[in-house]
Amino acid sequence: MLFQRVSRGVVTIASGSWTKVTCKCCFTDAVRPLLVIELNKEVRLETKQWIISKIEAPANKQGAQLLAHPGEDDDGDMILVAAPPCTLLRNAEAMGLSKPYRDGTMLAFSYPDRASFKNADNIEELLTLAEQQYIAKNELDDLKAGTNESIPGCSKEKGSLYPGEPIFQKLEKSGIVKTMYPLHDKEKLSTFSKQWYSQFSSWELPLDYIHSYFGGPVAFYFSFLGFYTVSLLLPAVLGAVLYFLPWHSLNGHVLLAIFNVVWSTVVLELWKRRSSELAYGWGTLLLNSTFEEPRPNYRGTMGHNPVTKRWEPYFPSAERKKRIWFVSTPVVCAFLWLTVMGMVAYFYLEWCVKDYYSQEPSWFAMLLLYLPSVLHILYVDFMNNVYKTVAHMLTEWENHRVESDFQKHYTLKVLVFSFINCFAVLFYIAFYKQDLELLRKRLASLLIVSQIINQVTEALVPYLLERFFPSQGTKQKEADPHIDKLRAQSCQPEYPGLFAEYIELFVQFGYLSLFSCVYPLTAALLFLNNVTEIRTDALKICKLFRKPFVAPAANIGIWQTAFEALGFVSVISNCWLILISPQVKGYCQENGVSFRNALLCTIALEHVLIILKVVVAFVIPDLPKWVRINVAQLEFRSRQALKTVA
Amino acid sequence: MLFQRVSRGVVTIASGSWTKVTCKCCFTDAVRPLLVIELNKEVRLETKQWIISKIEAPANKQGAQLLAHPGEDDDGDMILVAAPPCTLLRNAEAMGLSKPYRDGTMLAFSYPDRASFKNADNIEELLTLAEQQYIAKNELDDLKAGTNESIPGCSKEKGSLYPGEPIFQKLEKSGIVKTMYPLHDKEKLSTFSKQWYSQFSSWELPLDYIHSYFGGPVAFYFSFLGFYTVSLLLPAVLGAVLYFLPWHSLNGHVLLAIFNVVWSTVVLELWKRRSSELAYGWGTLLLNSTFEEPRPNYRGTMGHNPVTKRWEPYFPSAERKKRIWFVSTPVVCAFLWLTVMGMVAYFYLEWCVKDYYSQEPSWFAMLLLYLPSVLHILYVDFMNNVYKTVAHMLTEWENHRVESDFQKHYTLKVLVFSFINCFAVLFYIAFYKQDLELLRKRLASLLIVSQIINQVTEALVPYLLERFFPSQGTKQKEADPHIDKLRAQSCQPEYPGLFAEYIELFVQFGYLSLFSCVYPLTAALLFLNNVTEIRTDALKICKLFRKPFVAPAANIGIWQTAFEALGFVSVISNCWLILISPQVKGYCQENGVSFRNALLCTIALEHVLIILKVVVAFVIPDLPKWVRINVAQLEFRSRQALKTVA
Repeated sequence: MLFQRVSRGVVTIASGSWTKVTCKCCFTDAVRPLLVIELNKEVRLETKQWIISKIEAPANKQGAQLLAHPGEDDDGDMILVAAPPCTLLRNAEAMGLSKPYRDGTMLAFSYPDRASFKNADNIEELLTLAEQQYIAKNELDDLKAGTNESIPGCSKEKGSLYPGEPIFQKLEKSGIVKTMYPLHDKEKLSTFSKQWYSQFSSWELPLDYIHSYFGGPVAFYFSFLGFYTVSLLLPAVLGAVLYFLPWHSLNGHVLLAIFNVVWSTVVLELWKRRSSELAYGWGTLLLNSTFEEPRPNYRGTMGHNPVTKRWEPYFPSAERKKRIWFVSTPVVCAFLWLTVMGMVAYFYLEWCVKDYYSQEPSWFAMLLLYLPSVLHILYVDFMNNVYKTVAHMLTEWENHRVESDFQKHYTLKVLVFSFINCFAVLFYIAFYKQDLELLRKRLASLLIVSQIINQVTEALVPYLLERFFPSQGTKQKEADPHIDKLRAQSCQPEYPGLFAEYIELFVQFGYLSLFSCVYPLTAALLFLNNVTEIRTDALKICKLFRKPFVAPAANIGIWQTAFEALGFVSVISNCWLILISPQVKGYCQENGVSFRNALLCTIALEHVLIILKVVVAFVIPDLPKWVRINVAQLEFRSRQALKTVA
Repeated sequence: MLFQRVSRGVVTIASGSWTKVTCKCCFTDAVRPLLVIELNKEVRLETKQWIISKIEAPANKQGAQLLAHPGEDDDGDMILVAAPPCTLLRNAEAMGLSKPYRDGTMLAFSYPDRASFKNADNIEELLTLAEQQYIAKNELDDLKAGTNESIPGCSKEKGSLYPGEPIFQKLEKSGIVKTMYPLHDKEKLSTFSKQWYSQFSSWELPLDYIHSYFGGPVAFYFSFLGFYTVSLLLPAVLGAVLYFLPWHSLNGHVLLAIFNVVWSTVVLELWKRRSSELAYGWGTLLLNSTFEEPRPNYRGTMGHNPVTKRWEPYFPSAERKKRIWFVSTPVVCAFLWLTVMGMVAYFYLEWCVKDYYSQEPSWFAMLLLYLPSVLHILYVDFMNNVYKTVAHMLTEWENHRVESDFQKHYTLKVLVFSFINCFAVLFYIAFYKQDLELLRKRLASLLIVSQIINQVTEALVPYLLERFFPSQGTKQKEADPHIDKLRAQSCQPEYPGLFAEYIELFVQFGYLSLFSCVYPLTAALLFLNNVTEIRTDALKICKLFRKPFVAPAANIGIWQTAFEALGFVSVISNCWLILISPQVKGYCQENGVSFRNALLCTIALEHVLIILKVVVAFVIPDLPKWVRINVAQLEFRSRQALKTVA
């Protein structure tokens, strides 16, 4: 037992992982430690005490209004952070979270009116664990240095702070804070994780649990993955029927091409509606835009922020635009060019080797036949890795002020490259070579090979490693089981984020909507892949990685746009594949239609389909009716409230 | 002088048109009468008194919190309505109007914090005349009947009210209120109207005056017209140079086609930025969505409104959708088909007549040559009038609940028809006949003829009528000059709205962006037309019509989308016109390029241009930097305020 006086009340560390608190403005039995700050082992006591005092100071002293508890471990390099209810609730209002009101409707949470919300007295029910952890993290990130402040117990150079500098960014940059991570709650996790990744019979994902435990973006990723996988059933069945029916599968070619265009449009529209239903239920549909702090790597000369009038590093956006347009764009184009050139070289080399083999068939020549493919795969892999590094460096060098801008520009760079990298060969075969048989072979091998590689590298290897060579942290000491559990979490690798997962979905959605009419089994293969993908992804986030901090989210963000863009490209590619299909060619020859007229018809069809897509997207409302009524009700009530108050 | 006790203070009608007021909660020297309610002459005194009492009752008695003054005219059929400052200011907050704060920035107006805004003590400076009149109108529209209320002095059938029924809608429906209109302020109007429509030397429109006097949509229409006219200068000069240079004008064909695509994209993007600048300056960029009352013509069985829970007529939206899809859409398509068929018949008839003339040339046959054109023009005009009536009836029958939905559906119907009606012949000549010379002749005659007709019917006729046969109201009586002025306004016809003006701009923008590459003088002709159009439109709204009620607006609304859609169509038409241009044809013949390959190249060009358009629209921010910073500041300040209050 340990008592510690803090400026705003008395914190009692109870046995186990809960902390009792009596704060000036709110009373509760116990608060839960939300996150761990891991310090460098060389940090002096005075520095640690200064950090704790900052964490606990009230808002009027520019503190984070949180509760800190120096870890009870031997090294003393951990600080556990908890949050009193009043801090959590004030932030819930500022973020614009909606919560169930006493009459059952969702309403934007209001701190002054907090007693009227359901579970008003039980913070654990009112705010999800993920929200609490994000709020605590946000409060720490918001900590600003006062005038003439510096970090005590440090060299002058390392510890100097300019007024208004984000303190935790400085602490991380100078190596005082090694890392910060939210804590797992194994008990909660075990209640739903089994259903998630072990029960192969269950189709329903425990989305509400995932949302409350891991937060918005993770829940949205899994809902999207689940939704998309279920929607794959229809094309999977249709494709399989067309593939295995006695008549030749190419007969279904035109049918499947039209189906693909309709399917991808309808699925994305329905997802938008599903997504807004989820966001409404999770209270995140009407989030406030937040004022993000500058990124830790943001550099610039000191100046006044034009919006907040704060004194902070400032980098003119004109300079950033110059870098984007005159450096990043040409470099990205150069990489795209190199990729396309690699493809051309591959086809040329293959042609040479085949020519050589037909002239002098030998064992050596037969081995040589594999050379172009191997070289091309190595080249693509090499380019892929180099590009990702280069794209990251370029985006870093563009010096975006806030993380969301950084992510947007980085995502865009990687998306464009992935598109060219994955689909250029297929486009080349379809549009230039116009060889449907080759396209079908290529697509089949891509699907099967890439799936096997993905499953092995993504899930099997880390799982086996964890199983047979468990991470060292868990074994090192066994003195205090509670502290050991914390240590174990700190030894796990950081969660790499959902970026790679979404790219994977983007590529498979591309195979399906752009080219699958020539290989009807595509959807079935993707369906099988995704059924396991859901489980391996769940296993990864639950077991293999540290818990990530995630902000509340209202949708899947930029990825919706990316998938919709693929939908438009799919109209072009499917129309073209219809034009060059054997059926249409046969029909044209029989009826004496010139290629020119067939082409004009195809263009007309393409334009009509694109207009139809736009019209469908416009006609189907993004919010289902009940969500629209509820949102209108919410706005009506707040407007009525405004009139009464005034 | 006339004193009248009202429930909330003493109203004094001062000499002239201003009314002194001492309200419970605000003091001011005088209030201005904002609007006139004209009653039916047979209305009984008790009905008139009941209406006045409703207008003046405070909000807690479900009144409109306005000030009413029974007209001093002989017939007693007029009620003048004014508004006390407190009512105006509360509504300004509810509408989300931004006003200059004492530190010079624009901030969402807040009634409790009203003293911190500039001109806090002078309502005439704080709120524009148009805003005041709209607020007064809105308060009247918001008047709801209580339980067991009925209109006194009326037959039971005519005067019955259901609880919550909008009172003024009922009064207008039952003919008790003949009309309601906002009052002109001739003094104010004369300060800027001269600059607007008489000074041909001045280029700057008095936009701020227009906004404050006529309100948002009118100001946005004239800013758009002015902006678009100035942007016409560049294509006008370029076109004129290409037309009058010694080398044949078709040489500039390809150049002009590309220029048109770029120009229309850039102009619309720049307009978006200009529009948001204007909206920021006028304080309407961040308007609150309002809860519109049902339209007067909205019918339905009584039920609970799912949003407001009020008891009111309710019409299921599923039924409305059925009507839209199964009746309106087929009818609209039938009209489009009839228009296209009319065009086909015209071309067929023309071919027959020419054939007949070439076989038997005579005076009669020569006269017959004009028959197809005359018949077609009559047919088009007839269809146009019938369609407008039918579209209005259909949209009325679809039974939209709020006026904005009604307008949206009506606009869409008329837009689609106008597009086909105006451009079908040109598309037919360009795409099917591929006769550039005919296209050029047709475009030139359309431009010149339609301009002359427009100018005559739109401006000259009403102006001459007004000049030589002034409306009777101004002459009838000369007893009281003040009342006579009001009577004169009531005799003017109602302002027909901006719909027809926008359609006109839409059609000329279409001529320019879709086809003008074959007739380079288009832009110059349109420029000349618009320079006078600005003046005649201004004259119409200032002199010839009654002042309209207009709601605040943040942009030109649906018309932005309509013009942008034209931009996309212009890519298709310009690419096609490039393909069939003599230059490209000549180049292909010289270099042995097949039509098939030229067509493929054109398609590629078209797709690239469309992608470019999307990218440009994405890259150019809709808000200029200074507006973005100011809006972010505004949001940052309200967020800070929230934190402090909490």
